Amino acid sequence: MIQKIDKQSGAAFKLKKGQQLKVISPEAEQVSDMVLFNAHDIREKLSSGKTLDFEESILITKGNFLWSNRSQKLMEILEDTNGRNDFLLAPCSPETFEIMYDYKSYHPSCFENLYSNLEEFGIRPDDVPTAFNIFMNVQFDSKGKLSVDPPLNKAGDFLLFEAKMDLIVGLTACSAEDSNNGSFKPIYFEIID
Amino acid sequence: MIQKIDKQSGAAFKLKKGQQLKVISPEAEQVSDMVLFNAHDIREKLSSGKTLDFEESILITKGNFLWSNRSQKLMEILEDTNGRNDFLLAPCSPETFEIMYDYKSYHPSCFENLYSNLEEFGIRPDDVPTAFNIFMNVQFDSKGKLSVDPPLNKAGDFLLFEAKMDLIVGLTACSAEDSNNGSFKPIYFEIID
Repeated sequence: MIQKIDKQSGAAFKLKKGQQLKVISPEAEQVSDMVLFNAHDIREKLSSGKTLDFEESILITKGNFLWSNRSQKLMEILEDTNGRNDFLLAPCSPETFEIMYDYKSYHPSCFENLYSNLEEFGIRPDDVPTAFNIFMNVQFDSKGKLSVDPPLNKAGDFLLFEAKMDLIVGLTACSAEDSNNGSFKPIYFEIID
Repeated sequence: MIQKIDKQSGAAFKLKKGQQLKVISPEAEQVSDMVLFNAHDIREKLSSGKTLDFEESILITKGNFLWSNRSQKLMEILEDTNGRNDFLLAPCSPETFEIMYDYKSYHPSCFENLYSNLEEFGIRPDDVPTAFNIFMNVQFDSKGKLSVDPPLNKAGDFLLFEAKMDLIVGLTACSAEDSNNGSFKPIYFEIID
């Protein structure tokens, strides 16, 4: 059953070892931030530093694994029809909009949408790690300068993940203008047994 | 007073807001992993994802700030005589040597040297974030492929940091062969009021 994450919102759910998760961009040019926790011990969680180290790449796509802070495999990426994801940048937060967008009032954020959905699993805001930013198009030059560019995904593009342990998953339809080329769309996901 | 971190070991100490920390490579080609925590609430800590986001760069050097998971400035880098540091890779751990070096027996690691020294401050292994890897020479190509190359620092090269809040600092003399061009040396540090 395909489930919908409304624009600028999020979801959290369990995924059993061996189950697959399909994350779909139904309307193109959208980003989804994903965080992962060991379902049996939430102190074990997704680590960008361990993943980039073991996979020996900044760019993580089909064939790569997502690793935990305890050096365990959390997921394998079985398919990636778009091919561009980011694992450098933290989820957009209220401060992202204050500091980088000079936004003065309330703005939805992936950070809030992650921690508010993950709260039912005992996960607090400080526990949210750097997310695997599905479809996010962060470009870098040879000097390391970063720019957040419009996502390259077309309507229907998806990534397919396989859980390597029992997981709690947090997932968003991203709230940041720069990540989505100025507009906001939903994200679809499907859990496949 | 200059203090010495012996090869393949670590240290942890408090640094007050406004104090400066000088981290020196006394014998060239050495790396020092540094992690930071809010001294008054250890759930606030160094974040690579927030730092790369706010500083808009993979390469962090003089003029940049190190940011926390709560989007606060922890340190400013006042000086960097070498100019190459890494903030992509997690500290080397026992699993680094098993998985990447195919090492079968005990090997010292920055991860162990960080958590064992930070234990007196109530910080546990799972709390150790991706470190700011001073002097570490991680090269990347346009496809994102990473390689750990010999450090470029000369004897006496240093970074000078200023604390922007009261901090607990964990610091190592790195234990990984690839990071140090195959040999191990000490790291010196100095707290300046």
